[in-house]
Parts: sequence; C-alpha cells; structure tokens
Amino acid sequence: MAVENYDVVIVGAGPVGLMLSTCLARWGYKIKHIDNRPEPTATGRADGIQPRSLDLLRNMGLKRKIMAHDPAKVYEVAFWDPNSKGIHRTGTWASCPKFIDARYPFTTLLHQGLIERVFIEDIEKNGVQVQRPWTITGFKNDGKDPTYPVQVSISHVDDTHSETVRTKYLFSGEGARSFVRDQLGVKIKYKDPISHVWGVMDGVVRTNFPDIKMKCTIHSDAGSIMVIPRENNMVRLYIQVASSTDKDWDPRKTFTVEEVQEHAKQVLRPYTISWDRIEWYSVYPIGQGIAERYTLDERVFMGGDACHTHSPKAGQGMNTAFLDAVNLAWKIHHVESGFANRSILSTYESERKLIAETLLDFDARYAKLFSARIPSAGEVAGASSAQNPAEENEFVKTFKASCEFTSGYGVAYLPNTVNWGAEHPAQHPLFLNYQKGTSLRTGRILTPATVTRVVDANVVHLEQQIPLNGSYRMYIMAGEPSKTSAPIKDFATHISNPTSFYSIFAHKDTSVDRYHELHNPHNDFISVCTVFNAKRADIHIDEMLPPVFARYRDHVFADDVWDQRVPDAKAAAHAKMGLSEEDGGVVIVRPDGYVGAVVKLEGGAGTCEALNKYFSVITGKRLGEERAAL
Amino acid sequence: MAVENYDVVIVGAGPVGLMLSTCLARWGYKIKHIDNRPEPTATGRADGIQPRSLDLLRNMGLKRKIMAHDPAKVYEVAFWDPNSKGIHRTGTWASCPKFIDARYPFTTLLHQGLIERVFIEDIEKNGVQVQRPWTITGFKNDGKDPTYPVQVSISHVDDTHSETVRTKYLFSGEGARSFVRDQLGVKIKYKDPISHVWGVMDGVVRTNFPDIKMKCTIHSDAGSIMVIPRENNMVRLYIQVASSTDKDWDPRKTFTVEEVQEHAKQVLRPYTISWDRIEWYSVYPIGQGIAERYTLDERVFMGGDACHTHSPKAGQGMNTAFLDAVNLAWKIHHVESGFANRSILSTYESERKLIAETLLDFDARYAKLFSARIPSAGEVAGASSAQNPAEENEFVKTFKASCEFTSGYGVAYLPNTVNWGAEHPAQHPLFLNYQKGTSLRTGRILTPATVTRVVDANVVHLEQQIPLNGSYRMYIMAGEPSKTSAPIKDFATHISNPTSFYSIFAHKDTSVDRYHELHNPHNDFISVCTVFNAKRADIHIDEMLPPVFARYRDHVFADDVWDQRVPDAKAAAHAKMGLSEEDGGVVIVRPDGYVGAVVKLEGGAGTCEALNKYFSVITGKRLGEERAAL
Repeated sequence: MAVENYDVVIVGAGPVGLMLSTCLARWGYKIKHIDNRPEPTATGRADGIQPRSLDLLRNMGLKRKIMAHDPAKVYEVAFWDPNSKGIHRTGTWASCPKFIDARYPFTTLLHQGLIERVFIEDIEKNGVQVQRPWTITGFKNDGKDPTYPVQVSISHVDDTHSETVRTKYLFSGEGARSFVRDQLGVKIKYKDPISHVWGVMDGVVRTNFPDIKMKCTIHSDAGSIMVIPRENNMVRLYIQVASSTDKDWDPRKTFTVEEVQEHAKQVLRPYTISWDRIEWYSVYPIGQGIAERYTLDERVFMGGDACHTHSPKAGQGMNTAFLDAVNLAWKIHHVESGFANRSILSTYESERKLIAETLLDFDARYAKLFSARIPSAGEVAGASSAQNPAEENEFVKTFKASCEFTSGYGVAYLPNTVNWGAEHPAQHPLFLNYQKGTSLRTGRILTPATVTRVVDANVVHLEQQIPLNGSYRMYIMAGEPSKTSAPIKDFATHISNPTSFYSIFAHKDTSVDRYHELHNPHNDFISVCTVFNAKRADIHIDEMLPPVFARYRDHVFADDVWDQRVPDAKAAAHAKMGLSEEDGGVVIVRPDGYVGAVVKLEGGAGTCEALNKYFSVITGKRLGEERAAL
Repeated sequence: MAVENYDVVIVGAGPVGLMLSTCLARWGYKIKHIDNRPEPTATGRADGIQPRSLDLLRNMGLKRKIMAHDPAKVYEVAFWDPNSKGIHRTGTWASCPKFIDARYPFTTLLHQGLIERVFIEDIEKNGVQVQRPWTITGFKNDGKDPTYPVQVSISHVDDTHSETVRTKYLFSGEGARSFVRDQLGVKIKYKDPISHVWGVMDGVVRTNFPDIKMKCTIHSDAGSIMVIPRENNMVRLYIQVASSTDKDWDPRKTFTVEEVQEHAKQVLRPYTISWDRIEWYSVYPIGQGIAERYTLDERVFMGGDACHTHSPKAGQGMNTAFLDAVNLAWKIHHVESGFANRSILSTYESERKLIAETLLDFDARYAKLFSARIPSAGEVAGASSAQNPAEENEFVKTFKASCEFTSGYGVAYLPNTVNWGAEHPAQHPLFLNYQKGTSLRTGRILTPATVTRVVDANVVHLEQQIPLNGSYRMYIMAGEPSKTSAPIKDFATHISNPTSFYSIFAHKDTSVDRYHELHNPHNDFISVCTVFNAKRADIHIDEMLPPVFARYRDHVFADDVWDQRVPDAKAAAHAKMGLSEEDGGVVIVRPDGYVGAVVKLEGGAGTCEALNKYFSVITGKRLGEERAAL
C-alpha cells in the first residue's frame, strides 16, 4: 500500500494543535490531525482568553464566534484577606490597567470546549477532520524521502486500525504527557521544585459574597480559594488541595466535590454559598516544568503544555499555547512556500522558550505574591487608583509588570533573524529603533491605533486591517503628504525593481484575476497599508500614491482620529508609534503582529535598500539593486 | 370544527411584521403569522439599518447576528456634481455627525433577506412559524367573542386550503398594497403629488470611481444616480428612471438591466464601470403617501409600508417599520397583561403617524436638496468640518437637522399619556423637564452613557443594560451617596407600599424561584438600574442600597467613566442627562427606550408620589398612599 504524504502531522486537538491546524489549513497545507479523545472537550479545562489573544482571534476572524457564547469578562481582580469576622476585601485592581494600550482590557472566560469548536468548524471548512480517537505510536526522521523526511505511525486507541504516513513536519500538541517528547528523550526541567494538587469546580451558585462575579483571590484562616466568573452564570473555584511542601504530601491526593464545597463554605465565611448545579469538577497535580528543547531537528516540533506546565492561576495556559502555534505556523509556511531560509525555524524555540521561561518565573512570583504575602489595604489602594506614580511601592510595581505579562502584551522577543536589532546582519543607517526615531520595539506587538479608511470613511483599527494571512505587513506611515510625496515615489520606484524584497516574490501566474484581491495583489508574502497624516477628505489615493501602493485602495488610511493617550498629537497613530508626524517611517510587522523592523522614510534608494538587506537575511536571497546591475 | 383563537394574527413577514412577531412571541403571546410569498426575501429590497435601529437590535440581542454577515458601513456621504470633464466631488459629510451622541455612527447595509432570517430564527425559537404562502381573504371585528373580537379568514394563495380564526388583534404588515387597509377603506393621502419610477441594481463592479465604497449622490449632465455600498463587495445603484413631472410620464415605465448599466456608465464619466455580476435588479414606482389612519378600532392595526411609502433615498423604510412594530408591541403587551389602560393603544397611531409625516416632509425636502439644488464646494466644506457654527448656512443647517432624523435619533414623540409633559394629568412639583432640572426630553431616546457595573467591574453601555423585555426602565441616578442616602431610603420605603406603582404589580406567584432573575425580580413591568456618582470600588451594594434596589445587584453602576462630550464632569452619565451630579434624579424610560418622565430624587414621599401619579394615568389604577389609608 502506498504511504500517504502530508505537509504536517499534528497530534492533539487542544488549543495549540487546533491553532496550528487552523493556520496551516487556511494557507493550503495538507494536514493529518489526530486526537486520542473520542470527542472534543465537553466542559471545564482552560478558560481564560487574555487581551492579546483576543486581538489574535479577531485577526483570524474568530472573535465574534467566541463572543457569541457570551463569555464572562474580567476587568478587575479583588483581594480578600482574613479578619476577625472571617474575610474582608482589601482592594481591587484592573486586570489590564490603563497604562497598557489594549483594545480589549479584560480577560474573556469561556470553557475550552466552546473555544475548540470554533477552531474545529474552521479547519473543517478547509477540509481537515480531526481523526478520533487515534494516537501516535511511533515516528522517526529517517530522511528516506527528502521531501517527507519523517515517518509517523498512528493507531486507533483500541488498536483496531493503524496507519503509517510520511510528513514534512510532525507536531506534538499532546499536553503534559507527551509521547513525542518522551521518545525524543527531551527532559522537563522543573523550575520550582514545589508541586501542587489543584481542585477546580465549575457551577452555578447562590451566595451573598459580593464579588462572586469578579476574579478574586481569597485568603482566610480556613485556606485559600481563587474565584473566576464564567459564562452561563457559572463560577469557577480553584483550590490548592495539597502541596509538596506539606508534611503528608501525596501527589495523588484527592478531594470529593462535597469536601471542596465544604472547604469553600469555610473560606467564604461570614458569607454563605450553595450550589444549584456543578458542571465540572477535577483534581489534578501541577508541576512547574519546562521542556529543555522544543525541537531537535526542526522537523519534529512540540508546543503548548507538552513544553511548559504551570499553575492555572494566571490563566496563561491556552494563551501561551495559541502563541506557540501561531509562531510556528507562519515560519513553517514561509519555509515551505520558498520565502524564507530554513534557518528561521530555529527562532521558534528561541522565541517561545524564552516566553515560557518568563511565564514560569512569573508564575512563581505570582504564587508568592498571592500566597506568601498579604497586601495591606493602603498598598492595594495605590495600585487601584495609581494617580500618583511616586507613591507606588515594590508590590505595586511588581503587580504592574505582571499585568503587562498576563495580558499578553509583555511578550518581547529578543533580536534575531526576524527581529531587527543592533547586531542584526542587515545594517543600514536608515534603520530606526526605540532609542532613535521610533518608540516601537522589534519583537513586541505593533501599537494599536485608530484611523479612518479613505475609501469608505470607516473608522477602523489599523492593527487589524491585515488579517492573519501569513504575510508580512508593511505599514507606510506616510507623514504629511507635502513632505513625503517624493520619498514615497522613490520608495515605490525602488521596490518595483524586480530584485527588490517586494518584487522578487511577485505572483508568477499573471493570468489569475486578482481585481478583488485586497491583501495580496502583487505577492503572497507582503501586504501593504499606507497611513497619511491628513484629513480623510483631503486624501486622493490615485493622485497621492504611486500605482504599486495605490493598488491597495482598501488599505489607505487617514491618521485623523483623536486619541486620549496622545491628546496633543495631530496624527495619533504616528505619535503613538513615536514616528515623526511630518516625515513618517516604514514599519515592518511579522505575520503574527510583532514588529520586525522600522526604517526611516527618506528620498532616494535608502529606505528600500535597508529593507532589501533585512529581507536578504530572512530569505537567504541577494535582494536589491546590486544584483540588478549584474 | 372549533375555531382556533390567537392573541394576534400578523399578515406579512417583512420587517414590520417580523419585528412585531418577534417581540410578542418572546413575551409569550399566541401568534398566527402568514405571508403570501413562498420563501423569505432572497435578495435585494430594503437594506439600510440606521444607528438608532442598531441600538434597538442590540437591545434585542440580535445585533451580533446581523453583524456576522459583515455588512457595509456608511460613515460619510459624498456629493458629486457635473463639471467640464464629467463629474467631480464637491464634498463629503458624516451620515451621523459627531453632534449626535450615537453608539454606532454609521448606516449598516445588508440585504433585507439576511435581516429577515435573523428574526425568523428568533420567532421559531419561540414556537412561531410563518405560514407560507398564505394570504388574508377577509376579517371583521364582530365582537361575537368579547375576548377574541376579530374574525380573520385566510387561505393558501392557490386557494387549496383555508382557515378561519379568531384573534384579539389583527396586524397588517402587508406593504404598500394592503388588503386590510383597502377593506377598512382607509385612504392614502399623497403628500407630494409627484410620483417616481426607480430602478435599483445590486452587483459586483469594477470601476476607477474613487467613492464606490461610499454612499454617493451623483449629478451629471447625463442624469443622477445614488451609490450605496453593500455586503459581499457589492454596490447598489439607485436611479430615478421616470417622474410624474416628465412630459411622457408613465408609471409603468421600465428599463432593462443593460439600459441602466449604460446609463450608469454615462453618469460616471470620466470614470469607468463594469459589472462582474448582478445579484438583484428591480424597477418600481414610488409615491409619497401616508395612510389617514393606522387603526379604526384599536383591534385591527397597520404598520410599515402599509401606512407610509416614500423614496428609498434616505434608507428609512425598514427603520420606520421596526419602530412602528416595537411601538405597538409593548402597548399591546401592557394592555393584555393588565398593566395599562386600553387607552394607551391610541398613542400608537398618534406617535407613529407623526413620525411618518415628518419622514415624508423630510423625504420631500431631501429630494429637493439633492435634485433641485447642487451645493457649492464652499457650502459643503462648511458642513464637513463644521468647526465654526457661525459660518453655517441654511443648507448646512437643513442637512444637520436631517442627519438627526435619518439616524433615527430625531424621533420626538409629543407629550401624551405615556410621555409626561406640562399638560399631563399627573401633576406634581417634583417632575423635571428639559427646561428645569434635566436635559432629557420625554418622547426622546435616553442619552447613551458608559458606566462601570459594580458586581464585575465591566465597562458597559447603561442604555443597554435592560433588554427589550416589555418593562419600563427606572434609572435611579443616585448622585453622591452621601447626599442621596436618605432620599433613596425614603424612595424605597414608599415604593414598597403595596399600593405603589412598583408594588401593586408584584408577582402573585411567590413560589417561583427567581434567584437568578436579573431584570424582573419583583414584577414584570418595571426593571431598575441604580447609578452612583462614585468610584466603583467605593460602592458597597448591600450597605448603600435598601433591599428592594440592592436586589438588582447586576444593575448597580458607578458613573466613573470619563466622556469626551462632558470632559469636566465627574459623573458623565449624570452630566449628559443634565441631572445634578450631587442629587441625581429618577428617569422613567418606556420599554422601547424613550424617556417617559423624569422626577427629582428628594427625601420624603414626593418622588414616589409623582411616579404614582404618572403611572395612575397609564394604568388607570389609583396608586399610592391615599388608597392604602382607606
């Protein structure tokens, strides 16, 4: 029997596997996706979607479907501490405070199953079915077929059927107990030697506890509980039932529902609580571990819980999984479609492992903040109002740094091939960085900005105008038209050179009708937006832009919407990015929304030259005028 | 055979019939709904949802389903006039300018069929099926059964089956050709003697006309066209193909698709246009007519196009239909559920006919503005920037007034039984009006305001917190807690009197478990919100509110969100309603969102007394302390 070949074999249909499958299925890859559970998650499990993840889901056109389930939204966290009567609230603070420039400054709570279904519908539309209940039984990167170097064996969980396939990539999204990781011999490094057993319970309650619809951390003399509001009028209670620091530590220790309910009643006194129904209940051990490698050969990859496990307290699990998957998806896509050098695949581990390490460090600090130290009322009030930064103490500062991280906006990838930096092989005087010419930082998310679309006068979110289509996003922040008219013309001339980073990947098949193509009229790897510092009605696309940019009619914007964060700016988007409102600049954003490079917009060949150099490193091609002159 | 009895028989499943059916089905009424078309609208027809209608759809929980179709959004209108080269743009202006405080300052464009389907799904969930293709063949209010006084005969359009039923109410949403209206002998009064024949065409085009994604009015030497962007990359072109002022006027005059396309090509020169596909095309005559009566007996009612016809230019048809239906729905509900006096039914005609008359007047003026007079560039620039009100001319002023009307926010019902006014039978010194103590006007929509919900710290839209549940909305704008603590306590004491407007309708069946009931814990006719001028974290519901108001835990808000419209206010919601930020006030809002009465919040019995008087008039009951003393 002929062995079937796939682009990717994905093991596990939890958040990380589904996100990878969704991206690659949309971009046309042939996928074998298996999961060892007979059905998708029915209740419970992960539930917190952080602000940054909501941006990502919106960018994929999936946010509305998530929101259709009417999830709970957490804007603030309340802290309760013991007092003589039982417990009292010592303070509250924003879960995503105003100093973070977030579109959606809240955590969205919805059970994992509902979220999974949104992804499953999407991959099915693109012809991928999750094969259930099937499991992986073996694999090897034997290179027998250079195109499909990895052989994978899978079988039905009851062992009645089995298949052997070949693939370009194998991905393990199997969760903490990963067969692939075990087979590779990749060790888990335990950051914090302390393990915990957690009980978690979703249900509908009756209580006079006033903060039952807030996220709460409750410390009482009877123990601690974390409260998380849920969709459908439910509430989740997290309770740490055992710790490896306990004298009688037993990682298999368990509690009945009734015991946890009784425990909750004790903790909440003087308030009362009772349950109308319990939807889900589980007890599970958690260790703070991180895989030493995410891949050994850049053919077999792992992500999500297979690579990092930690407490559920900060609601980071699913979010980290999503970002693992997206990070890998576009890199595989760029390599397989011939855009990028295979070496960019190494940045998956270096970027995502750093985030996992930061997450585990944070998780340890977070646990310490909540468990070991009870903030006083005065300290918390300082965090809540934050009107006088001078009054902030160490506790508040730590909290603030944590907020940025937990919201997902703290992710900061280090300079590497795709994130320009002072040590990047591409060097050119026009590169800008946050110390010179821009406040944007490579490896961090593009600053959100509200602008007016010229063609239809719609007020829109600039950062959402290019969907997650696998393309780099080139934002020409075009400053004042009178100042930048010549530089933009020059830039257009140079990128139209057939060897430029923009033109070298031009669509080969020119017979395809691309009239209605909004995002990729010229090539599949770069989508362009232009933003003028001008009033919408004063922008005449065909008169003010060379044809190569004017072609992106739906991506021309007026930077004319006032923003409370930069109240004195005439062009708020320019100002928020720290670019000259007169002279603008060119911002290259990776397909996953992180800034790759920022270049000055200047007359002559320089702007294009700098970008040719940057993309030469990524693509491994010699780009630009030099070669044209050969 | 026994004749089946219904609460309402609805004829016609267009926007007006479906909206009525949706409201009444949700509120538990037994409905017979017929339509003479075999299928719902497949393409074309009405398509513009105005800002106010979007508020209403959101209030019904239907907005997200409408938006899931990715409708086009019109933020601005562009004006094109003839010049030597063909046409040129003379200016643009906002379709819902900033001076209107709208949540959604745009028109939403989506074909009627997609909108209808959202309603049809909703009524089906409530057990109502539209019976198709069936038509009405006769009816009479013979009173033979006092509970179901109207007999209605209906039959399949091919006459194979027929039924006779009895009903409390018969509603005609049949459109311009109304059998019911004809049978009643109600005349159409033609406001403007001029009739027109319109051609309308939906399709996907290729053009270099720069404003193809804007709403445009184009005058050229070759004729005039109106451009409306649509969902799915389509565009609608409206073209007036004949007018009764023409020498060769023929109301049956028609044009082929090709003729209209050729016409469009001429009008758009020097720009080019061609069509990839045509989705819908129609030619139809329009007269500006209004029915002399909307009901003769307050048992048989009409609404929507059966009562008013006009040009499609301002996109008002469906919106007026929606508001006709909602207006009637809650009044029927209040009468049939024993809350209101039957006399409130007369306000349906008086309120909605006034709006139709305003619409027709406006339509005539609008047509004149667009057809008879071409604005000069200078005038349009004035409207567009509007930075110096002193420079505004008559044209701009007319436009501005029109914007308020076309957005749906211009609706202003006159004082009557439900809209308090100086002549209202209920008189009490504590009533406030826009000349004294508030900027709210009875008969107009409640001012939108953003506030923070206390229980979960969610930032929410106050005006949306009570859904369209058929209840009056009582907003206790509670000012500063230190100032209003005593008045609120007194108010609670007096409305807890069994004969008060609030308590007299208390749920009879106290055995029902209403623990999770958010909106109607005490009665079915009034839902309460309380808004404090305080920071969220400083509001302790159980300590600061008497139990009757504290019971609405999910409806207690902090007026602590800054608003650009009242930048210096501490409590923006209070300020926008023109109420004292210290002393607050009580705002009664009708079930459809229009202000009914505003009363001062004062210590003692006065606040409750004033509202007892107001609701005595509506309910026909003697409410309040007097009776309790009997």
